[in-house]
Amino acid sequence: MNLALLFEEDFVAPDRVRLRGRRLDHLKTVLKAGTGHRIPAGRVNGLMGHGEVLSMTETEAELLVTLDQQPPAPLPLTLILAMPRPKMFRRVLQTCASLGVKDLWLINSYKVEKSFWQTPWLTEDHLRENLALGLEQAKDTLMPQVHIRKLFKPFVEDELPTLLGGKRALVAHPGMAAPCPTHLNEPAALCIGPEGGFTDYEVGKLEEAGCQSVHLGPRILRVETAVPVLISRLFDACL
Amino acid sequence: MNLALLFEEDFVAPDRVRLRGRRLDHLKTVLKAGTGHRIPAGRVNGLMGHGEVLSMTETEAELLVTLDQQPPAPLPLTLILAMPRPKMFRRVLQTCASLGVKDLWLINSYKVEKSFWQTPWLTEDHLRENLALGLEQAKDTLMPQVHIRKLFKPFVEDELPTLLGGKRALVAHPGMAAPCPTHLNEPAALCIGPEGGFTDYEVGKLEEAGCQSVHLGPRILRVETAVPVLISRLFDACL
Repeated sequence: MNLALLFEEDFVAPDRVRLRGRRLDHLKTVLKAGTGHRIPAGRVNGLMGHGEVLSMTETEAELLVTLDQQPPAPLPLTLILAMPRPKMFRRVLQTCASLGVKDLWLINSYKVEKSFWQTPWLTEDHLRENLALGLEQAKDTLMPQVHIRKLFKPFVEDELPTLLGGKRALVAHPGMAAPCPTHLNEPAALCIGPEGGFTDYEVGKLEEAGCQSVHLGPRILRVETAVPVLISRLFDACL
Repeated sequence: MNLALLFEEDFVAPDRVRLRGRRLDHLKTVLKAGTGHRIPAGRVNGLMGHGEVLSMTETEAELLVTLDQQPPAPLPLTLILAMPRPKMFRRVLQTCASLGVKDLWLINSYKVEKSFWQTPWLTEDHLRENLALGLEQAKDTLMPQVHIRKLFKPFVEDELPTLLGGKRALVAHPGMAAPCPTHLNEPAALCIGPEGGFTDYEVGKLEEAGCQSVHLGPRILRVETAVPVLISRLFDACL
């Protein structure tokens, strides 16, 4: 937690918050903060600054907050991800949030197992918690939006063309002829397939919707590695 | 397992291997391979190609291997990493191997907890297993070398200057003035600190040894995210 992310329900006055649970534990055990200690803080979807500990009990800490700085710039990226395996999904969420992704679409694909959609990590509370962990890691406040689309074809045919409007649109797929571009400074959309990749049919549908297929070299990367590698490559000027 | 990595002890003849354990399980349960099925295979530190299943029993599979392709080019990088927390260490190892890192130095730092060095994942067998998983993911055969240095000062003063000879040397550290470069085509060395970063003293010592301090933007990334982001940024032409 490089920044304490503050939600509306934490505020007891315009400049005062009370922290409990995970953030309180972190204050006590990792930061070893006491009265008068200042920690970086930021209001969700708002400004960043610091909080000064006014008091601390067993169950809560009260902080006086001064928020006067803009969060880092969002990445101009729409990330469209085949729903990852649950055991890596939380990490992928946190990674996306920490890298500044603000628009995340979780879609179906032939190689997405049906059971992946049953994970409790897809509930609103868990999504918010894991995205908050990523924001707190990266010192950011702007909460990403997550969209869930459990049917591939209606999403790709009916929604994707509009979503891609005006953006550089890419689908990362091993074995394609064109290498993934670098140095983008424009809004972009990037589709990343599941373990085992999109099927040829799916790549064809994504291309029909306006995506260009690109490869990332001879190495096959796990989704959790491909996401930071691709984002870093596309947006080296924005990170 | 996008490629079955074959070790000397797997070979029963120059062109025959027997697989057991994890790789056999993967053949059966994920690839559902039977007699006649071909899977990508490669000899550790050697050529890649395929193996054809000749026979399969409960306990082993015998494959006829044809190995005639070079593995992907190694990354021209010496990666110097403050020893990560055990729970992320395995993933970092696998990620490094999958990205083509061949020269990995695990070093001490003030914020590396002493207990990190006690992890069983540092034993030779576990290192080899996790590096093999990364190679199998990426379809590579060249086993990375891992060097363990539990004392910071002797390493930085006595070994590092020689290690950096002729290389572009960088230390990634939040808040530095210079941004991390891109598009390297030359051999490079990159130092990445622990959670909480190197201390100012340590950054000073790394600079004395020949490293340039660079930042990676306003976001603070976990080591497991910083590694792929930095590698992708430095070597977009090599990946």
